[in-house]
Amino acid sequence: MAELRPLEAEIIAIGSELLTPYRSDTNSLWLTEKLNGLGMDVKLKAVVGDERGRLVEYIRGALQRADVLIATGGLGPTEDDLTREAFAEVLGRRLIRDEGLLERLRQRFQKYGFKMTSNNERQADVIEGAEVLTNRSGSAPGMFIEDGLKVIILLPGPPREMEPMFEREALPRLAQRAQGFRMARRVLKVSGLTESAMDDMIAPIYKPYTNPTTTVLSAVTGLEVHLTALAETQEEAQRLADELANKIEARLGQHVFSREGESLEQVVGELLVEKGLRLALAESCTGGLMAKRVTDVPGSSRYFLSGVVAYSNEAKIDLLGVPSGLIQAHGAVSPEVAEAMAWGVKQRTGADIGVAVTGIAGPEGGTPEKPVGLVYIGLATADQVEHRKLQIPGDRERVRELTAQIALDWVRRQVLA
Amino acid sequence: MAELRPLEAEIIAIGSELLTPYRSDTNSLWLTEKLNGLGMDVKLKAVVGDERGRLVEYIRGALQRADVLIATGGLGPTEDDLTREAFAEVLGRRLIRDEGLLERLRQRFQKYGFKMTSNNERQADVIEGAEVLTNRSGSAPGMFIEDGLKVIILLPGPPREMEPMFEREALPRLAQRAQGFRMARRVLKVSGLTESAMDDMIAPIYKPYTNPTTTVLSAVTGLEVHLTALAETQEEAQRLADELANKIEARLGQHVFSREGESLEQVVGELLVEKGLRLALAESCTGGLMAKRVTDVPGSSRYFLSGVVAYSNEAKIDLLGVPSGLIQAHGAVSPEVAEAMAWGVKQRTGADIGVAVTGIAGPEGGTPEKPVGLVYIGLATADQVEHRKLQIPGDRERVRELTAQIALDWVRRQVLA
Repeated sequence: MAELRPLEAEIIAIGSELLTPYRSDTNSLWLTEKLNGLGMDVKLKAVVGDERGRLVEYIRGALQRADVLIATGGLGPTEDDLTREAFAEVLGRRLIRDEGLLERLRQRFQKYGFKMTSNNERQADVIEGAEVLTNRSGSAPGMFIEDGLKVIILLPGPPREMEPMFEREALPRLAQRAQGFRMARRVLKVSGLTESAMDDMIAPIYKPYTNPTTTVLSAVTGLEVHLTALAETQEEAQRLADELANKIEARLGQHVFSREGESLEQVVGELLVEKGLRLALAESCTGGLMAKRVTDVPGSSRYFLSGVVAYSNEAKIDLLGVPSGLIQAHGAVSPEVAEAMAWGVKQRTGADIGVAVTGIAGPEGGTPEKPVGLVYIGLATADQVEHRKLQIPGDRERVRELTAQIALDWVRRQVLA
Repeated sequence: MAELRPLEAEIIAIGSELLTPYRSDTNSLWLTEKLNGLGMDVKLKAVVGDERGRLVEYIRGALQRADVLIATGGLGPTEDDLTREAFAEVLGRRLIRDEGLLERLRQRFQKYGFKMTSNNERQADVIEGAEVLTNRSGSAPGMFIEDGLKVIILLPGPPREMEPMFEREALPRLAQRAQGFRMARRVLKVSGLTESAMDDMIAPIYKPYTNPTTTVLSAVTGLEVHLTALAETQEEAQRLADELANKIEARLGQHVFSREGESLEQVVGELLVEKGLRLALAESCTGGLMAKRVTDVPGSSRYFLSGVVAYSNEAKIDLLGVPSGLIQAHGAVSPEVAEAMAWGVKQRTGADIGVAVTGIAGPEGGTPEKPVGLVYIGLATADQVEHRKLQIPGDRERVRELTAQIALDWVRRQVLA
């Protein structure tokens, strides 16, 4: 398959606010997924500020490297918006004011009852030879430019303008120019194994393949196996990716919790719907994070009844019916209290499964006997209640995230069992 | 102040996994904050994959533009780790295996009971003339390189290795080279105003200033006013930033919820501690997001008693004591039920303030009378309960996030009142 070369894309996000500690560019993640779907590889991405000299120099370099160059941002009406001018300069083309666009801009302002200031007229300036991409959600139009074999796409920065414009206007034009092959990706998400244990199991399976290529990534939410296949048709690329994914999945069994990149909470939700089971949660150290994740999923009211964030001992006693003597005898962070919380929330809400977590997320509150990172998870079903003990290294955020992940994964395995 | 030119930095994150739709570089945000603190401006940042040719070409261009170039990642033991080789090539310097480093690597492997494979020896390769930056949390060392007037810093990719290495080893060396002036930033976060209303209020105040510079940003969590001041000393830069920040704050009053970039939940927590008040939450459509945010703050057990995620009607009745007749008469999404939930959670937990939200987050569940985005917030204090009605445009995530933000801001204003 060595002769297959995917078109190489680069993405530039333009805007000085994206160079502060407080903002990051997320458009490029969305665009990468779309470009990958067309069989194109994103080779480099960058954030450049609103400074004409640097922008021009950067664009010049990027155009030498990339087949497809996509820029987001800097198309607005203010003096800081330099994308049009910078690309025109690099391409050695003129900016031409488009009278039709100008008229549509005027109408748009009128419709919303605003007076159009002269600054806004710049948004009707189009680079010579560019096709205009209509903006249905905002005022700044985009552009699709061909320069020799290179394709350049200029898009607005706000995602709600950029995404529909790319989807409706840029994607069809790009697809026509994509070469005669396609890329397919599969992402398997894995729980309950260390990275090296997983690699021992699956390296003998994926190593012999050069297509698909396999990458193993490690995240708080588990291990991920990424498979990328290239072929002359989408179907063939998909078949190659699926074939290897199936082999890996067969080896890893229930450790694979997600086959198409879905989140754990989506998978748990689908399983609960499928089995007609209803869930309730009692959280101490995770403080609502589990309930938040479960209810991130649209339609979660079909299987999620309620959650109790029992931060104080009184809440554990009053809202969950944990006997106060149990807390006195064993402490709030104990297997006994975890089980009583799980049972309590299941009974009080009438759920089929009750899950509880109690632990010490830190940074304060640890003792030599019960250090930061000690967590108990309780899980109650129709007729029994169990617990698990975790000792999670890391900071407050990590303890909370990993606890939520492990507890939700326990629900998944319980429902599958 | 035109003669002050901050040193210009660029940041490169190296690693093909950062070019997938699933990962983004966060190291650069952390580094930007540190560099800004030294009075340096980050002018460009990029993500480059593990491909030697492109990496070399990119580094060559960046070194022409930047005074300070920081690279993260690609320093590990595998064949994909090409940072050392690429920088050596661009700089025209040799890679020299450091015997002392090699010995320390061997000892590290021994200590953890692993055998060091020959691949790992590459981590002892140092670019000629570089100072080695010790890695206390992992195996790959970093490098500090001077090339003419340029400074190049190579750091490992994992944040828990990169951050302490930068702080302990790179920052002091960089600080020595920083020019004779400093930068100070202030971030004011603002609630309860539209962007244009706020700008009408504060533009006359900040427009006359060229130092500090002022930028207004809009986020789901509110408006942000960023002030950046330059001066020859840190104290003077801070004084300039504070002076303008104080004027803007005086104009905006209680609309300013955060003066130093703190999150709303931190601010609410500090106010509750100060006034000795305790909070309880009852959430329907936000599904635990508010409790999660409140408990993100370490030490929140001092003022947060408990939360109830009452997704089902039964949970509203059983756990919060909402009269079932009220739900029948007005529906679960109604001012009456919001108030009853707030009062119920306050009474049941013994809190001083009870806050409740009930609404339709979507995408399903809307009707012509009660469309997606309709939310009621209830707030109960010692002797009274009130409600507010919101109609939030946007998708499920936006409805949930904005609801949580507005409800927490109401708590802040209530405690201040």
